[in-house]
Amino acid sequence: MTTTENRTTAGPLRRSPGATAPLIREAWYVLAARSEFGQDLRQRWILGEPVCFYEAEDGGLIALDDRCAHRRFPLSRSLRIGDTIRCSYHGFTYGKDGRCLAVPGASPGDITVRSYPTLQRGPWVWIWTGRNPQDADPALIPWPAETEGGHSVTGYTINPCNYLMVHENLLDLTHLEFLHGFGVSDFTETALALLPPDELPDGFTELAVGYRKDLHTVLGGYALPTGDDPSTPVFHSTRTMSVTPAINYAVQSFEPTDPAAAKLRTVVMAHCLTPADDDSTHQFWMAWQDVPFTVDPIEHAQRFETIFNEDVAALGWIQEHVERDTREGVVEHSVPADVPGLRLRRLLHRLAAAETR
Amino acid sequence: MTTTENRTTAGPLRRSPGATAPLIREAWYVLAARSEFGQDLRQRWILGEPVCFYEAEDGGLIALDDRCAHRRFPLSRSLRIGDTIRCSYHGFTYGKDGRCLAVPGASPGDITVRSYPTLQRGPWVWIWTGRNPQDADPALIPWPAETEGGHSVTGYTINPCNYLMVHENLLDLTHLEFLHGFGVSDFTETALALLPPDELPDGFTELAVGYRKDLHTVLGGYALPTGDDPSTPVFHSTRTMSVTPAINYAVQSFEPTDPAAAKLRTVVMAHCLTPADDDSTHQFWMAWQDVPFTVDPIEHAQRFETIFNEDVAALGWIQEHVERDTREGVVEHSVPADVPGLRLRRLLHRLAAAETR
Amino acid sequence: MTTTENRTTAGPLRRSPGATAPLIREAWYVLAARSEFGQDLRQRWILGEPVCFYEAEDGGLIALDDRCAHRRFPLSRSLRIGDTIRCSYHGFTYGKDGRCLAVPGASPGDITVRSYPTLQRGPWVWIWTGRNPQDADPALIPWPAETEGGHSVTGYTINPCNYLMVHENLLDLTHLEFLHGFGVSDFTETALALLPPDELPDGFTELAVGYRKDLHTVLGGYALPTGDDPSTPVFHSTRTMSVTPAINYAVQSFEPTDPAAAKLRTVVMAHCLTPADDDSTHQFWMAWQDVPFTVDPIEHAQRFETIFNEDVAALGWIQEHVERDTREGVVEHSVPADVPGLRLRRLLHRLAAAETR
Repeated sequence: MTTTENRTTAGPLRRSPGATAPLIREAWYVLAARSEFGQDLRQRWILGEPVCFYEAEDGGLIALDDRCAHRRFPLSRSLRIGDTIRCSYHGFTYGKDGRCLAVPGASPGDITVRSYPTLQRGPWVWIWTGRNPQDADPALIPWPAETEGGHSVTGYTINPCNYLMVHENLLDLTHLEFLHGFGVSDFTETALALLPPDELPDGFTELAVGYRKDLHTVLGGYALPTGDDPSTPVFHSTRTMSVTPAINYAVQSFEPTDPAAAKLRTVVMAHCLTPADDDSTHQFWMAWQDVPFTVDPIEHAQRFETIFNEDVAALGWIQEHVERDTREGVVEHSVPADVPGLRLRRLLHRLAAAETR
Repeated sequence: MTTTENRTTAGPLRRSPGATAPLIREAWYVLAARSEFGQDLRQRWILGEPVCFYEAEDGGLIALDDRCAHRRFPLSRSLRIGDTIRCSYHGFTYGKDGRCLAVPGASPGDITVRSYPTLQRGPWVWIWTGRNPQDADPALIPWPAETEGGHSVTGYTINPCNYLMVHENLLDLTHLEFLHGFGVSDFTETALALLPPDELPDGFTELAVGYRKDLHTVLGGYALPTGDDPSTPVFHSTRTMSVTPAINYAVQSFEPTDPAAAKLRTVVMAHCLTPADDDSTHQFWMAWQDVPFTVDPIEHAQRFETIFNEDVAALGWIQEHVERDTREGVVEHSVPADVPGLRLRRLLHRLAAAETR
Repeated sequence: MTTTENRTTAGPLRRSPGATAPLIREAWYVLAARSEFGQDLRQRWILGEPVCFYEAEDGGLIALDDRCAHRRFPLSRSLRIGDTIRCSYHGFTYGKDGRCLAVPGASPGDITVRSYPTLQRGPWVWIWTGRNPQDADPALIPWPAETEGGHSVTGYTINPCNYLMVHENLLDLTHLEFLHGFGVSDFTETALALLPPDELPDGFTELAVGYRKDLHTVLGGYALPTGDDPSTPVFHSTRTMSVTPAINYAVQSFEPTDPAAAKLRTVVMAHCLTPADDDSTHQFWMAWQDVPFTVDPIEHAQRFETIFNEDVAALGWIQEHVERDTREGVVEHSVPADVPGLRLRRLLHRLAAAETR
């Protein structure tokens, strides 16, 4: 475990886990958008494992180890015949459950490739990367209940850094002002309140870290996707959470002083984070709101992409520092805004350590 | 030594050497095509060593350590003067035997760079990479005796993987059907018979692994380079061999039911494999036949290049899996077609282990 | 410490430090040209550390650790406001002395980023990379006293190799004839005389290695930048020195037999070498002479760039050999011209070892 000395201005120096975290496997992760599952065989690396995925003829969401059990040839580069895949190296044929059905000139015996449990939640397909398929309890998918119904735009990006750094980026929203240039200094200055267990997502209180920020302000930039008046006074409440290891989301509610002054009541920004490997992280994002968009959804999604590209650049620079600047005795100074992030670090490291036992 | 669990459908789980093999130095390897030797100084890395080569004025095939004994400057980037090379860094001058003949402002004393024994066999120049030049017995060059006379096209490619993976690719020709799309399912389905010592190349019985496949079939695609009728019935016999560590070749004989129905009798496909380093492998290939080509040899060679590029892509994907997918407990399942490949693995690992003693 | 067997033709085999040296931190190095300091925040990696630099409003030369003390975001990618920098991740603001002046929603306490002592000498800004700013004695800057007044052109290049290899390249000028094709065989053949302590730069006798070469010759190529006659007979005296770890320079004096026959008397070629990391080295070079140039200075500088690009290529090839050719038992053969270089190796390794104590 890499450790970093962390000094908070409030308290004494203490050692805490460093800026990167080991991978956690006993969990559900987003593998792909539902729309990526189709006739074609596709490949994505997650947690350092290659996965081949496709939609079966009955609509089943198939995710297999993307390496033939014979000599590691990628099944995603092979031939789909109905629901089966015939390896394009030596012709081993697999069913959609991963069982080998035929081997040229031999019996397939009990040859099998790993089949991952999958399930759709929201616009995405989740897979269970844990050891036992029996543990793949759908109730463990950390999908925000707040996003039933409503309207959303989604997208994908890949971050050139460890997944913990993306979590921390998303958990400390004061960066909205300084990295992205949002005029939200009242939000930045507002103190955070850690979420008590009963305000964390049901069933995830042991796996989540979150905080609330409440402030009287105006709709501002949030008025854009609904055509509301940005100067509308609102009570703005934000709950920002990381549910380890696979998702970070913020639920924002707006209560206008005059209830008729604005349509928007709730916005959820969700980021499903799936490590590709130790140093790169898939990010499947969704911007959800309770009322219809009045702007073009594609343009709206592009605005988010522009913002997330700024995060990608920033995280790449920091990852370069983590990899290349190997001086000893690095001290990260932390402030009250970092309390959730430091909790998250300790939680992820504890979960990872528990898995290796 | 990396090991992989290998499970054959016929037998119990056993540990066997993994998909990559260490380099073997006490051997002859192809360094270059004879036509690459000329006036220019050239460089090629083999077995992780840089080699400078050229043709001397008397036609001698010169291969020297491509690093000046003074400060490692590559001789291949230096100045040829007659048969000598003057290092372009500080002017040390070497004869074609590697002896230093002159040092500016000093005596060359006994300075020398390594000179590799070389010998031409077929269209290629072989070099002895073993420790002692005295061990460079020409009889140890594993050149197929079958290719005296005849007609051939040749080419070169580089594979982005360990040399063992190229050997195994070439040793299991069932991939012709699945990777390259040849319609040879009768060949694929035919059982192989391991070659007994007396059918292995003379003098190489301890260093070779091979098998035979015999079947009654038609000329098929093999008719192309001779203009014969593809539907001609033949008895097709193939001996496929890897002679460790430097060559794989297949000798195919065709006996038409009607001896007048086809010109073609023998085809040899030879691949000289020379590791550039642990993870990349030079491949010098030759397609030989006993009768003249009736097709344009250049177009014929291009057809082979297209095929070998498919192998290069496949081997690159597998190498990516070997390097990037580091999960423990990988089991490769093997089938009867893999018996020669598994023998080859054990043989290469045994030879490598013997060298380090 | 890597070691290499060194054999000199004069003496017995001995072990000596290898072709690369560890980094030395207790020293002044050139960070940048003075002209690179301005309004913009810039980044350069030196000794594996990222440095942010700019010119303060009062002309001060500011060099700070280029990573925010909070979460490592590069200050050079942040916002300059007057003389302060506001981190573009979470808004931590730093003064030009590295002290944190403001943290959004918290007290900056004693947060600080490292500030490097800086000083201009010649056209360049030097920084002290040693542990204690108090040790940053300006007298330790190894700037050649010979270059007061006069005329110069300067430039920059980066070498893809360890800094010791650049020092050795510059210390053995016999490569001028063989790598760059200068017709200076009389210079090459002339024996060198090690500089005794009293001819080494004042105050650096323990840190410097140098030698003199004296010869009766003609101005030759040195006549070019002054329009003198190349055939002018001169007594040419060269003192070539490496002052560890940060500079190599050669002072050349020309005494024409007829004092009126040439304007040129002194030429200094100085190379400030600053490791970017273990395997790449910044080179800030200056060609100085005592009389005005009669050629266009830009064209003159371009001629030097062409030459130094030849060195960059050569050093890259050698670095490739050092990294990729890992055979054991490499023997470098040394000759009398290498005596200064071997002294330099031992000196650098001794200094580096002393720092780690």
